[in-house]
Amino acid sequence: MKEFDPIEKVAGSVRGLSAYVPGEQPSGGGWVKLNTNEFPYPPSPRVAEAVASQISGDCGSLRLYPDPVSSALREEIGRYFGVGAENVIATNGSDELLNLAVRAFSDSEKSVAALDPSYSLYPVLAKMQASGYLPIDFGEGMSVPYDQIFSCGANMFIFTNPNAPTGMAWGEDVVRRIAEGFDGIVLVDEAYGPFSGYTASGLVGEYENLIVAGTMSKGWGLAGMRVGWAVASEKIIGILDRVRDSYNLDRLAQAAGIAALRDTQYYEKFRAKVLRTRGETEDFFRSLGWSFPESSSNFIFVTPVDSRGNSGFEVANDLFEFLKARKILVRFFPSIEKINMSLRITVGTDAQMAALKAAIGQWLSAR
Amino acid sequence: MKEFDPIEKVAGSVRGLSAYVPGEQPSGGGWVKLNTNEFPYPPSPRVAEAVASQISGDCGSLRLYPDPVSSALREEIGRYFGVGAENVIATNGSDELLNLAVRAFSDSEKSVAALDPSYSLYPVLAKMQASGYLPIDFGEGMSVPYDQIFSCGANMFIFTNPNAPTGMAWGEDVVRRIAEGFDGIVLVDEAYGPFSGYTASGLVGEYENLIVAGTMSKGWGLAGMRVGWAVASEKIIGILDRVRDSYNLDRLAQAAGIAALRDTQYYEKFRAKVLRTRGETEDFFRSLGWSFPESSSNFIFVTPVDSRGNSGFEVANDLFEFLKARKILVRFFPSIEKINMSLRITVGTDAQMAALKAAIGQWLSAR
Repeated sequence: MKEFDPIEKVAGSVRGLSAYVPGEQPSGGGWVKLNTNEFPYPPSPRVAEAVASQISGDCGSLRLYPDPVSSALREEIGRYFGVGAENVIATNGSDELLNLAVRAFSDSEKSVAALDPSYSLYPVLAKMQASGYLPIDFGEGMSVPYDQIFSCGANMFIFTNPNAPTGMAWGEDVVRRIAEGFDGIVLVDEAYGPFSGYTASGLVGEYENLIVAGTMSKGWGLAGMRVGWAVASEKIIGILDRVRDSYNLDRLAQAAGIAALRDTQYYEKFRAKVLRTRGETEDFFRSLGWSFPESSSNFIFVTPVDSRGNSGFEVANDLFEFLKARKILVRFFPSIEKINMSLRITVGTDAQMAALKAAIGQWLSAR
Repeated sequence: MKEFDPIEKVAGSVRGLSAYVPGEQPSGGGWVKLNTNEFPYPPSPRVAEAVASQISGDCGSLRLYPDPVSSALREEIGRYFGVGAENVIATNGSDELLNLAVRAFSDSEKSVAALDPSYSLYPVLAKMQASGYLPIDFGEGMSVPYDQIFSCGANMFIFTNPNAPTGMAWGEDVVRRIAEGFDGIVLVDEAYGPFSGYTASGLVGEYENLIVAGTMSKGWGLAGMRVGWAVASEKIIGILDRVRDSYNLDRLAQAAGIAALRDTQYYEKFRAKVLRTRGETEDFFRSLGWSFPESSSNFIFVTPVDSRGNSGFEVANDLFEFLKARKILVRFFPSIEKINMSLRITVGTDAQMAALKAAIGQWLSAR
């Protein structure tokens, strides 16, 4: 028996690190799952066909390594965004892309900045890299604080567009102004881009400091397959590739991603359906007098108000627990003071939204 | 147009980094592929069944995130090695595990050591982490140089067992002696373990500094699915988990891994077949008077000798090119002087080996 405390051997940047905690993924059935912004409809039938064709016969292709540079998938992503495959890196979800970008463009002397609030994975990745993390407050009325962004001194600025958890989005003029004025890498995280209708991918030919990240987890119903990417200048793609694992995407993920990207008609139809349901859900919250930023995403960040007119942490926490007890899961960030009076609720199917509305009605009667 | 040189913004450790270059994955058909040590037989039929069951119906499960902690897969890996799921981390191939371990246990003040030659990914990962990398020469007759290992001052020592590219393996006494004597993390890389018949996984309860890494790429015919792991103390697993991406393994990879691990009978049968073919191939090389270390793996590291009795870089290079022109791909490391007189040849099917032997016969007649 050799006793040993591995903590003494841990790298400096990892010693005090707490892992990012993703939204709960309940293992049993029967949940109305509105907590991690998954697409409420199944992926295109073309995905199942593509996977089935990979495992046909004796499944023998699986014994061979996948294409290490995901050529066919990158071609397809490039076609989708009107850029060349050399402007694309394919990753294991956009989480891996964020990890690679922070690793490539930050260290103890080069910090990362992002608006606050935004995706809470960013500071974890920065800490892992021993780099500084600069959260920048939004301006008045959630406006983009250009001066603070331009003067923050960070090496990389991450612009979450649409923003999470608020759901707000900005147009091309804003992205151009940031890419123009910020002296460093600008990473636009478009995880929710498919719901806003705008992508900055077309700008990478104009701004050599721009990285535009995307994922199939939200807008393509493929969270289970881990397919993400970035679009950027060839130079930036080459740098990101240096820190990428050689075989980061398995054969079935590559095949599923290609099939989904090709079926634009299917996704246009079901994304339109998500947007209609979002509008109806916003109408419902409005009818209750609950406030929320207008969403350009597939979720709504709403501040619940109980029947006595109270809102705040206690009220949000109470509704969160009330819903959870009825197997309706939404996202609550209890430890982030700035946002812990609100709940982030994924736009689900009409049936899921009906269940949510009914449960909120019960809660209002009881409180 | 904003011109910008991203190189100026690159993290120090990534600035001079060259990515690891994996063995060639030819895209066309018709190759006798003996260059990346894939299993020559298809994966268990249970794998196709498991994947098919995930995509049955409307493929709807793929829209949901996978289990972030791969619980069922880790249970299965634990069962296979006789440890608990809390002693297991599941990763995107063992390459990801190596990446996580180097990230967690090395930095600019904590270096990594390994025997030389071994897997050429290790120094790339160390450089990415700005940590020192200490290659330690084997002793006389490829013996394990304990004194050098114990006095090297590294924070983590990676022991490749079986070794690549030589194919040599060591038993439990050697692993115990290293784990006992080295003051730091000992990572045993058992990528080729299924062919040696020995695993150190059972020792993690005794040595709290031990990490035993494995992969399904070599011994389970699942290189295309990217499933790897480490077995270690719960404390070490917790540390590795801090730097792991939340959703590092997709749903189909988790399902495929579980199905393959359960079908021990299938793999015992086909691994035995690989070992028989290895013996026959070694006999063939012996009959030519070509030398190689006795292999405990699914490849043979052989030094070709031409008909005039010459060996060395030129001869190995010539045979490599001769075989490649006949669509037989083996692995050659031209830029690593210590080993560039030899070729690493995967043990394939009997038909693939017959093609190799015939081509070598032609080469000997021509040279």
